[in-house]
Amino acid sequence: MRAILLFGAGKSSYFLIDYLIKNATIQNWQLTICDISQNLISKDFENNSYEFVSIDINNDEERSRLIKGKSIVISMLPAFMHPIIAKDCLKYNVNFASASYQSDEMIAMKDEIESKGLIFLNECGLDPGIDHMSAMEEIDKIQVNGGKIISFRSYCGGLIAPDCIDNPWAYKFTWNPRNVVLAGQGTAKYLENSKLKLLPYQRLFQKTERIEFGNNLIFEGYPNRDSISYKSTYKLDGIKNMIRGTLRMPDFCSAWNLLVNLGITDDSYKIQDSQKMTLKQFTESYLDDSEKQVKEKFCDFFQLNPNDKIVEMIEWLGLFNDEKITDINASPAGILQTILESKWKLNPSDRDLVVMQHIFEFEQEGTLKTKKSNLYLEGETSTKTAMAKTVGLPLAIAVKLILNNKISAKGLLIPVSEEFYNPILSELTKYGIKFRN
Amino acid sequence: MRAILLFGAGKSSYFLIDYLIKNATIQNWQLTICDISQNLISKDFENNSYEFVSIDINNDEERSRLIKGKSIVISMLPAFMHPIIAKDCLKYNVNFASASYQSDEMIAMKDEIESKGLIFLNECGLDPGIDHMSAMEEIDKIQVNGGKIISFRSYCGGLIAPDCIDNPWAYKFTWNPRNVVLAGQGTAKYLENSKLKLLPYQRLFQKTERIEFGNNLIFEGYPNRDSISYKSTYKLDGIKNMIRGTLRMPDFCSAWNLLVNLGITDDSYKIQDSQKMTLKQFTESYLDDSEKQVKEKFCDFFQLNPNDKIVEMIEWLGLFNDEKITDINASPAGILQTILESKWKLNPSDRDLVVMQHIFEFEQEGTLKTKKSNLYLEGETSTKTAMAKTVGLPLAIAVKLILNNKISAKGLLIPVSEEFYNPILSELTKYGIKFRN
Repeated sequence: MRAILLFGAGKSSYFLIDYLIKNATIQNWQLTICDISQNLISKDFENNSYEFVSIDINNDEERSRLIKGKSIVISMLPAFMHPIIAKDCLKYNVNFASASYQSDEMIAMKDEIESKGLIFLNECGLDPGIDHMSAMEEIDKIQVNGGKIISFRSYCGGLIAPDCIDNPWAYKFTWNPRNVVLAGQGTAKYLENSKLKLLPYQRLFQKTERIEFGNNLIFEGYPNRDSISYKSTYKLDGIKNMIRGTLRMPDFCSAWNLLVNLGITDDSYKIQDSQKMTLKQFTESYLDDSEKQVKEKFCDFFQLNPNDKIVEMIEWLGLFNDEKITDINASPAGILQTILESKWKLNPSDRDLVVMQHIFEFEQEGTLKTKKSNLYLEGETSTKTAMAKTVGLPLAIAVKLILNNKISAKGLLIPVSEEFYNPILSELTKYGIKFRN
Repeated sequence: MRAILLFGAGKSSYFLIDYLIKNATIQNWQLTICDISQNLISKDFENNSYEFVSIDINNDEERSRLIKGKSIVISMLPAFMHPIIAKDCLKYNVNFASASYQSDEMIAMKDEIESKGLIFLNECGLDPGIDHMSAMEEIDKIQVNGGKIISFRSYCGGLIAPDCIDNPWAYKFTWNPRNVVLAGQGTAKYLENSKLKLLPYQRLFQKTERIEFGNNLIFEGYPNRDSISYKSTYKLDGIKNMIRGTLRMPDFCSAWNLLVNLGITDDSYKIQDSQKMTLKQFTESYLDDSEKQVKEKFCDFFQLNPNDKIVEMIEWLGLFNDEKITDINASPAGILQTILESKWKLNPSDRDLVVMQHIFEFEQEGTLKTKKSNLYLEGETSTKTAMAKTVGLPLAIAVKLILNNKISAKGLLIPVSEEFYNPILSELTKYGIKFRN
């Protein structure tokens, strides 16, 4: 009997819980799920056997008691909570798994994890996760066949199924809204012609690449904050071009660029008495003072035609109207997030979309070749989302591999080796998560 | 006998130490100066009586022993160290004085300072300091005479005496270089026509106001990060326009704006192996990849003529040449700071300049009136700077007032009341620090 403890039972955990429950009997697993309230767990799992626990996660004693004696702990909590849990795992010799980026705090535990022979697996969801595995499968294949990779571009997006698009942004939230509002702040780093390229936030959404899925589906990709950090992990040390980025529907980036350059994605200061302002006044505070209407001032400022699609997108958000701001003494980004959470809400009839594309350029036998690898997956319903599926299933399968001693490596890991990507990508195809060239 | 302890004996403390030493006998003061090395103290004070102490400022015991029993502690250390010292002062019932902005940590001690009947005076240097006092003197005068202030604009700059200008930026460092490089990051807030105006960093140096001193001296002012925070402190609650800002010589802001918008004032990330790059490569990392020369690419990017004065200013910094970067794995802002520290170094023959201007608009007896108040002060030598004089003397005089029980207010204070500004501004005129209309 192996004991699995899952922290976090919210929307993104649907398929993770589904997989763990369905495999529990045959794998001889005992499952414990911990969250604030059992109501967070889908009613679909009502009659299944798992133990539900609610604890104060910041209470060291309660948390330790829960973790002690488990075989593995999975954390789907916000990333900043992982180190607290991981430290307990280290103390009580329990394996750990998450779909989040490896944090510096996690890296600080590296030696101790290794010396105890434990596995702490991070970055095993969608992005990061499936991106690592699907890229490494191709990279290894190309290199084994004598190819020399000179360019790697990789984009991923969590979007809305084309037939569910009913707003001019062609976007709704299927992931953490705050992360979407603050995305890209800082400076993006990528590699072009063997040179480091730095792209500050105010130009990030202007520098997009057109990404096509077949003939009909067109997306735009903007660079992630750091595209280069995986260069050696991916065994691409001599590479000339390397960019990793995020996909949005066309026009999204151009319109978002207006919000960035207006200044309203800033989270570094509060506007006193923001609740006394209208949305129009909020927008006007960034524009010159004049007798003109706000929309005209906005168009003048950006030298845009009032009939331009991207102006319409800003107007649709309500930023030119007299509605009152509800957030009290809030940051601009906080105000914007509240607006977007109501405008970009996923309806019960909506289905989401996950898209990923890798583009490899490599030299083989003296010729330059290009290879594309595409993932296109629509959600089943507004709860059975493609996002929950692609985040939860790789993690669930990885947990199975770890518990069945199929992973020979020990220590602090991310899923970039064959022993992860072969079985995981293979099993994912059964769930429709399949890359095509 | 009153015991004064001064932390920080560097360049900015010259006139502060001078004043304390010269007044020590008549005032019956015992002076202790604490810093890393006695060599930091000017040789001019060699034969004077003060005690020099060097301690590990982070050693609680050594620091406490030094502070205990003193009448007042003056801190000229970097601002982040004030709270550590202030906490000891609170513990041992010692008054405290600094020329830095009141921090949140200082404000958290407010009630305790008051209940102990101590004085913790901050913001009593130049800016903040002389700006508060000179503005309040005029504001009180206008309001006592029945004037209603509708507009307050106030600018201050630490610059170079016109006859010492020998570089195209007309600027050298007379204050903390890091603060100059990072100045204005975030979003500036000011008041225009009774409306909140927000100006993000990337537009800050484009939004300058022309400020004249007589007919010949022209400066440009850009808004401070928060111009509104002193609205009620200055008793200007019904005011329509309020802006506080920083003065630079003409063209400085336009050229600095290029650096900001290129992206190289960012301190939020490191460039790996920056020491392997040349300055040209550093600049090029922010520009499109092409066969063109870096200067041409730079001009294309900003749509500037290569003969433009501001392009020449960038070129003068060396950003287009093949010199190697010396900073190892540094942030862009760190690399830029190193460049500027060598380019904008104050030579032994240089004298600095402090300028301040307040512009008040007010209604009196039905008519709209304007009043200007100007401070123009050149330094005597490269050590006897106008900066050290205008930062150190107000603080020194305030300390004298506090020790002589001339300040009736107790608690956490800034010098905005008559009992501060009358005696301090009056005594400052003896040192040539005098406002003119």
